[in-house]
Amino acid sequence: MKPVNPSNDASQGIEDLRKEIDAIDEEMVYLLGKRQDQVSQIVALKRAHGIPVYHPAREENLISSRRDQARKTGLDPDYIEDLYRLILRQSRVKQTAHMARKGIRPGANVLLIGGKGSMGKYFHRWFDEAGYNVRILSRNDWHLVDELCSKIDLAIISVPIDVTTEVAGKLGPHLPNDCILADITSIKGPPLKAMLQAHEGPVIGLHPLFGPTTSTMDKQIIVVTPGRNQSACQWLIDQFGAWGSIIIQAEASEHDEIMGMVQALRHFATFAFGQFLHEKGADLHRTLEFSSPIYRLELVMVGRLFAQDSSLYSEIIFSSQKRRRLLKDYVKSLSNNLAMLEEGDKELFQSEFKKVADWFAPFSEQAMRESSYLIDKLIERF
Amino acid sequence: MKPVNPSNDASQGIEDLRKEIDAIDEEMVYLLGKRQDQVSQIVALKRAHGIPVYHPAREENLISSRRDQARKTGLDPDYIEDLYRLILRQSRVKQTAHMARKGIRPGANVLLIGGKGSMGKYFHRWFDEAGYNVRILSRNDWHLVDELCSKIDLAIISVPIDVTTEVAGKLGPHLPNDCILADITSIKGPPLKAMLQAHEGPVIGLHPLFGPTTSTMDKQIIVVTPGRNQSACQWLIDQFGAWGSIIIQAEASEHDEIMGMVQALRHFATFAFGQFLHEKGADLHRTLEFSSPIYRLELVMVGRLFAQDSSLYSEIIFSSQKRRRLLKDYVKSLSNNLAMLEEGDKELFQSEFKKVADWFAPFSEQAMRESSYLIDKLIERF
Repeated sequence: MKPVNPSNDASQGIEDLRKEIDAIDEEMVYLLGKRQDQVSQIVALKRAHGIPVYHPAREENLISSRRDQARKTGLDPDYIEDLYRLILRQSRVKQTAHMARKGIRPGANVLLIGGKGSMGKYFHRWFDEAGYNVRILSRNDWHLVDELCSKIDLAIISVPIDVTTEVAGKLGPHLPNDCILADITSIKGPPLKAMLQAHEGPVIGLHPLFGPTTSTMDKQIIVVTPGRNQSACQWLIDQFGAWGSIIIQAEASEHDEIMGMVQALRHFATFAFGQFLHEKGADLHRTLEFSSPIYRLELVMVGRLFAQDSSLYSEIIFSSQKRRRLLKDYVKSLSNNLAMLEEGDKELFQSEFKKVADWFAPFSEQAMRESSYLIDKLIERF
Repeated sequence: MKPVNPSNDASQGIEDLRKEIDAIDEEMVYLLGKRQDQVSQIVALKRAHGIPVYHPAREENLISSRRDQARKTGLDPDYIEDLYRLILRQSRVKQTAHMARKGIRPGANVLLIGGKGSMGKYFHRWFDEAGYNVRILSRNDWHLVDELCSKIDLAIISVPIDVTTEVAGKLGPHLPNDCILADITSIKGPPLKAMLQAHEGPVIGLHPLFGPTTSTMDKQIIVVTPGRNQSACQWLIDQFGAWGSIIIQAEASEHDEIMGMVQALRHFATFAFGQFLHEKGADLHRTLEFSSPIYRLELVMVGRLFAQDSSLYSEIIFSSQKRRRLLKDYVKSLSNNLAMLEEGDKELFQSEFKKVADWFAPFSEQAMRESSYLIDKLIERF
């Protein structure tokens, strides 16, 4: 007999090991399927007995046990934690999907004003699936307004910022007295004032910090600005909670000030950065080849802004005099660095840097941890 | 006998299901441990027979099979793909760690100039683990330079940008003729020129686009700028490849121009944004509560910059006259928006936006895909 070729031998060995790995993988997906069934059964039991579904302590205990086991098995505990965060997240999404079908006030009548816009359609689907009766009032339906407002429990204004106050004024007189009037505009001061003037019943301002492309509301933030009779609005807040949203309460004035920073300033800065890349005619493709994950991350965020609707951004940026003043201050603050750049003044840069770094210090640990995690994810996937 | 309390009954049912889930989880981690062992065996076999370790086609086939199985099992295929990308990534990291121990030229003599800096220490560890003889030339060792340079195969300059050219000039005359001279500075033009003048043998410029906190070189980019006799430098390039790095070739001039955009401009913009938040005394903590994932992502990147060493950034930003001119152009470009902000000119904003959006269009799909993935990851984890 001819001796076995060592390289063929190796190929055969690799082939055998791969088959064993395939068998392990098949078993794992089978177990994940079984796990999903058990989770569904728990959710069904909880729903039947009105027990809250999400259980943070149980999740953390579970993670700790798996980390322990990983250590004993010679696996990296961080790796196992990453895997289990993904598994638990999926099970939460599943549970939220179940919840969506169960409304807090199924059968209640909901009127969406501007329900054919993208956010209107989005909420239409959610309320509909949760068993509400949803009606739409579009731009051309105003002659039907009394009919559409008859016996409604909730009216949500979902129209562009610049017509929100006008629409609130027009709608108010037609609403039943005990109906909740709400809006979802990204500024809250003027719309809330207009709603309070137009309607005598419960009023509440909502600002969902997510767009219509978001597939679940799980962990998505909704800012709630109280208007009038919040206890009558509670079921609506609970409904968003049941869909998985995180509710942040704030006065309209605080909301608008912080959003100037969070939205207007950030979007304007991103806009201006893209504008400059375009002016310089940067070669985006070649640039990406040279990109560290951090730059790649920044560049995809710029690309994301310009892939979306310009009117959304212009409404946010130009929504108030105060906001425009903030952005002008930003441009001026940047211009203050011109002399430093002109003179190549490294010392000035370093002293400025130190000042800001000291101010950021309490946030450093969190920033490093979260950004490192994201950079890892970016490397992992792309 | 008393009838069973339905709520206790539910609790018991939930408890039982949880125990079943725990058993499944224990089995899964056991299987992951077994899987890791099989992978290690494959890597050992491949190493022994000089077979390349990474096998993209095998990974994609594996993902396809698991997606198919997921569909049949009633699991979301995207979810299973995410899980398996994580598992495969971990197995690649493991494999890379194995590779690190195997040098391309084990036993070769490597001199690190500035080897006590953070990048110097980083490379020290990698070369050391791969079986190279590593020597360090620190600031105070110049009286030993001839001894340290004796019979070295590679000298890597790892000192601050502003002294790189000077160090190259000082070192050159002491190097053996066939020794590779390399640097890892983040600008390439002047250091490469200085190295070519100082040394007659093989010269190569390297720019690793990652910092010393990066735990693996897997998929990390290193830009390579050819100097002289690249074939003699090939083993060094192969070594970085074996450690998992992606090698991008470029002329020093192209590198420096693109890096002006990728590093100097981006870092300066981030610096100026943090500077402005500090000026305005923004409440970072409350702001984060109101943050959409996108803003959170931007804010952690700003926090990340200010958590690091200011001199790193000042060297990058002030490295050349040309770079400072680019940054001044950026400030001026931003200032061009002042009138638009002053007058609240939405039409101008929208037409500017459209111009830039058209230019970004070929990049939109990728930007949306990558940024959506990251936003999902951010929501998942925090």
